[in-house]
Amino acid sequence: MSNLKIIFLGTSGGMPSKRRSLPSIAIKYEGELILFDCGEGTQRQMLLGKIGFKKDFKIFISHLHGDHILGIPGLLYTMNMLDRKYSIQIFGPKGIKDSIEKLMNASIGKIDFPLEIYEIDEGNILETKKYSIKAINGNHVIKSLAYCFEEKPRPGKMIIEKLKELGIPRGPLWGKLQRGETINFKGRIIYPNEVTTPPRPGRKIVYSGDTRPCEKILNIAKNADVLIHDSSFDDSLKNKAFEEGHSTSLEAANIAKEANVSKLFLFHISPRYEKDDSILLKEARKVFQNCEIAEDFLTYEVPYKK
Amino acid sequence: MSNLKIIFLGTSGGMPSKRRSLPSIAIKYEGELILFDCGEGTQRQMLLGKIGFKKDFKIFISHLHGDHILGIPGLLYTMNMLDRKYSIQIFGPKGIKDSIEKLMNASIGKIDFPLEIYEIDEGNILETKKYSIKAINGNHVIKSLAYCFEEKPRPGKMIIEKLKELGIPRGPLWGKLQRGETINFKGRIIYPNEVTTPPRPGRKIVYSGDTRPCEKILNIAKNADVLIHDSSFDDSLKNKAFEEGHSTSLEAANIAKEANVSKLFLFHISPRYEKDDSILLKEARKVFQNCEIAEDFLTYEVPYKK
Repeated sequence: MSNLKIIFLGTSGGMPSKRRSLPSIAIKYEGELILFDCGEGTQRQMLLGKIGFKKDFKIFISHLHGDHILGIPGLLYTMNMLDRKYSIQIFGPKGIKDSIEKLMNASIGKIDFPLEIYEIDEGNILETKKYSIKAINGNHVIKSLAYCFEEKPRPGKMIIEKLKELGIPRGPLWGKLQRGETINFKGRIIYPNEVTTPPRPGRKIVYSGDTRPCEKILNIAKNADVLIHDSSFDDSLKNKAFEEGHSTSLEAANIAKEANVSKLFLFHISPRYEKDDSILLKEARKVFQNCEIAEDFLTYEVPYKK
Repeated sequence: MSNLKIIFLGTSGGMPSKRRSLPSIAIKYEGELILFDCGEGTQRQMLLGKIGFKKDFKIFISHLHGDHILGIPGLLYTMNMLDRKYSIQIFGPKGIKDSIEKLMNASIGKIDFPLEIYEIDEGNILETKKYSIKAINGNHVIKSLAYCFEEKPRPGKMIIEKLKELGIPRGPLWGKLQRGETINFKGRIIYPNEVTTPPRPGRKIVYSGDTRPCEKILNIAKNADVLIHDSSFDDSLKNKAFEEGHSTSLEAANIAKEANVSKLFLFHISPRYEKDDSILLKEARKVFQNCEIAEDFLTYEVPYKK
């Protein structure tokens, strides 16, 4: 049972508001830290949200609009001042390398730790022992990527009755079988799938980036545990959403429903809803009940599916 | 009587802390807005501090370290989204033009209002009807400018007895004399200096930027109403201050004392004093009593000298 935690660091869109900083989402998992986007102010939000600068730290940028990347140079400078030695990986669409180079060259400063920048496109971006990250095109006014974090499947549960029936004593042999290893018990070869249920799917988080509702995100979000979706406007501004390459909360909810996700977070909230964002939730919940508006510092621990 | 207000937007140095955002100081005067430095997060601090984006808006950058300039692009993008049409003037040392260009080119976005960037050096930078701004070299690890805002002298006070003696009736003629105009009263030429006290000096605010204590700042700060001075460290870290081109609070206080300023604000506070910065104040007050530590959103209305 590994903790998988989402901490919203900035939930506004375009410009900040009193209540909301610019877009950034932290994922904490197994001692690693992943950021989706890094708007201006992210480093301070990390401090306020008590997110440490982990050794394993990766940043995934959806697109190159200022509100999603201008927090990068300050964050890197600060980690350098804190004597970071470990590398940082930053992934983003074509152009991200040039952007970060310009941001770093614009100010006098330096970083002494290795900075690995990867220009990526749709596909499998990263695979570790524990999770994978895929990217898919969203549909925005400029190239914008959506990201899918997916935990590796967990081993199936031990079938105790079966183990007892075979007379295998509780202990190291159970552990081996649980980890998927075949054992030899008193001359009999026992395969893990004889004594465990099938592997259980890992948890899945999809972040849409800035986007219109779109098929590709719908597909990659199928049965996700969490969908964090652009929800810049309410339904009365659907034409504006269309023109500016964003989604309404209703459109986000429709994607969540069709994709059969477990939970939807409305994200990239326009400052016009600073005082009252209830309409966004109301319209979304008409079609998808398990929905919340992301707030700065809201933390959500992603549960395993029952 | 014009209001002259200082609002500290960010008072940290190098990196932000929970309590302090990165360096920026707002001066509000006669409907105008002046920023000294523009660290990451300045635009949100402006929102939180209820500083409007004034029509007359100028930014003065002390030096090109990231913590002093990385708030510029986001601030400009936001003002553009708010349909700003008026120009903005940004002043800073050589290289500021290239820096801002890189910052703007690093992200996809645009601004439709005129951006005037001036690369300046020591000297008289700006003179309006109401105030002037001078720059002087500080002493930092890279070129860093200190700025002096100085209100134009106010006309002297009317000497009521003298006016009565001359028989000049209260009314438009008094106004003319007050404004420094010569009048003809019943065939007699009356010069303003006959009926008013000498012009009274305007108020003066000096911002040191990042700096070691230095002669030039001492000189320009002579009799200032407010000195805002680098005060990164306490006295036990004076060697560190020396190496990194900063000042201790004691050094700042010595400058304030020698310059005979009215009030000193300790600024650019290292995050190491996050929980307890009392030592900075204690050490500074040993030599200069009228001293405060700048805090984010602390507002100070500069009084006229008595």
